[in-house]
Amino acid sequence: MSAAAPFIAVDWGTTNRRAYRIENGEVVATERDDRGILAVPAGGFPALVAELRVRFDGLPVVMAGMVGSNRGWHDAGYVACAATIEALAAGVVTPEEGVAIVPGVCVDTKSRADVMRGEEVQLLGAVAAGLAPADALLCQPGTHNKWAVMKHGAIAGFTTAMTGEMFALLKAHALIGSEMAGEVDAGADFRQGVEACADTDLLAALFGVRAASVLGHRAPGAAAAYVSGLLIGSDCRARIAPGQQVHLLADGLLADLYSAAITIAGGEAVVVDSKASFVAGITRIRSLLP
Amino acid sequence: MSAAAPFIAVDWGTTNRRAYRIENGEVVATERDDRGILAVPAGGFPALVAELRVRFDGLPVVMAGMVGSNRGWHDAGYVACAATIEALAAGVVTPEEGVAIVPGVCVDTKSRADVMRGEEVQLLGAVAAGLAPADALLCQPGTHNKWAVMKHGAIAGFTTAMTGEMFALLKAHALIGSEMAGEVDAGADFRQGVEACADTDLLAALFGVRAASVLGHRAPGAAAAYVSGLLIGSDCRARIAPGQQVHLLADGLLADLYSAAITIAGGEAVVVDSKASFVAGITRIRSLLP
Repeated sequence: MSAAAPFIAVDWGTTNRRAYRIENGEVVATERDDRGILAVPAGGFPALVAELRVRFDGLPVVMAGMVGSNRGWHDAGYVACAATIEALAAGVVTPEEGVAIVPGVCVDTKSRADVMRGEEVQLLGAVAAGLAPADALLCQPGTHNKWAVMKHGAIAGFTTAMTGEMFALLKAHALIGSEMAGEVDAGADFRQGVEACADTDLLAALFGVRAASVLGHRAPGAAAAYVSGLLIGSDCRARIAPGQQVHLLADGLLADLYSAAITIAGGEAVVVDSKASFVAGITRIRSLLP
Repeated sequence: MSAAAPFIAVDWGTTNRRAYRIENGEVVATERDDRGILAVPAGGFPALVAELRVRFDGLPVVMAGMVGSNRGWHDAGYVACAATIEALAAGVVTPEEGVAIVPGVCVDTKSRADVMRGEEVQLLGAVAAGLAPADALLCQPGTHNKWAVMKHGAIAGFTTAMTGEMFALLKAHALIGSEMAGEVDAGADFRQGVEACADTDLLAALFGVRAASVLGHRAPGAAAAYVSGLLIGSDCRARIAPGQQVHLLADGLLADLYSAAITIAGGEAVVVDSKASFVAGITRIRSLLP
């Protein structure tokens, strides 16, 4: 398939869906809605995709993300590391004519198990587009944060940390949740959390938030940023060595927070355009399809 | 006050209340109910204690635990480390004639904050009763697990870890909660978790539970014990050095789990009778009151 041929790229996650009309490798139209896979009734995928194609002139569709999971339209399975973009393209499933779903990537060895679905297109796309080197450590902050080791342009291995989910769990349900008021930004409270997690383990540091509140050590409104610093700091410290360069597929607040934490942990953060990476990756996959 | 004089000792926590009639340092009658402080209406403490005293022949009462918090009857404050049993007795508050409430203990330095309330009686009682040495590391597993360093019979310092609360949070609310079926015991799955946490950080190890389930690496029903092993193992590894002896104020399942984790982490666990420790501690405090 020519890389210039127009198509629809869909990044279909658990709670959101984004669709791009791509021509000559450029996005010429975008749709975004909250029809994540959890909002799709049983058997509802073919009709939703048909509607989408009507709006986009019947172009062929290449989809990535949870739509390819066992709760999505069709389980596209996983490509084992080291995973190349060619292996992803070769593993695409086609539930119907004109629709391709990209598989996820897994680590599946005797000693370790890890899975990703959706992030692989960004990771391989970042390298394909020259936004990250072929040998690099890439980080995609989120609910389930991915840290991928790229070698020769392939995903050689990766680690997922439940950093974002843990923050949400603590805020909503933990005893310290009531202390976690206030906005999170990359300021002094956040940085204090990143520093603190170098000296203590997470289970003790988290209870310390309660104790600091009881004894008046921390101002009300400062704990959410501090806990964010503890979690993101722990995540970064576990993953990077001094001097390590990290290519960060993030923008906005998460880019700010992870950049700050990586720097405090002794690394160097380089922010990469995650949307451009996705578009480059999915366009490359499309060009490899028959 | 003579150590032989009869009195009522009350261990009044957040969700439970235990009352003991103690004569000559021995428990001669026990009551246990679910009238923890959260179940007591505003202003309800005097009447509840009066009823209790009627059932126990009007004896004087010495109380410890959350009844002395700012959500209890009367805030008894905290004694700062190093805390002796004499300092606890000196810090007792008396909201009414015949009723004494023991203060908690805190770490309150520029760099650290930590608090306990209720556990201090057990800790100091264990040493007072000769159940633990005057210089020892004591561990009290629970929702908020306490690790206390005893020196010359005083609580020299301590660390609280939210180990138990984290397990409950994950089981009830996390994505991996649906994987956390099965009973927890100190068997092979638990031990595997304790081993695993030596090589990886908690945020990554916890997501690994999800990945192992997706890829079929772990049998359904094994994940709850594995996660318990990850958490308790992380807690123990952060607190003990090789060869470290730990006196464990626990019984039943928690004693089994912590004994196993301490042993795997290279330490040596000695189980101590926590009820006998409480009775010894509160009796000693009573004997020091005017």
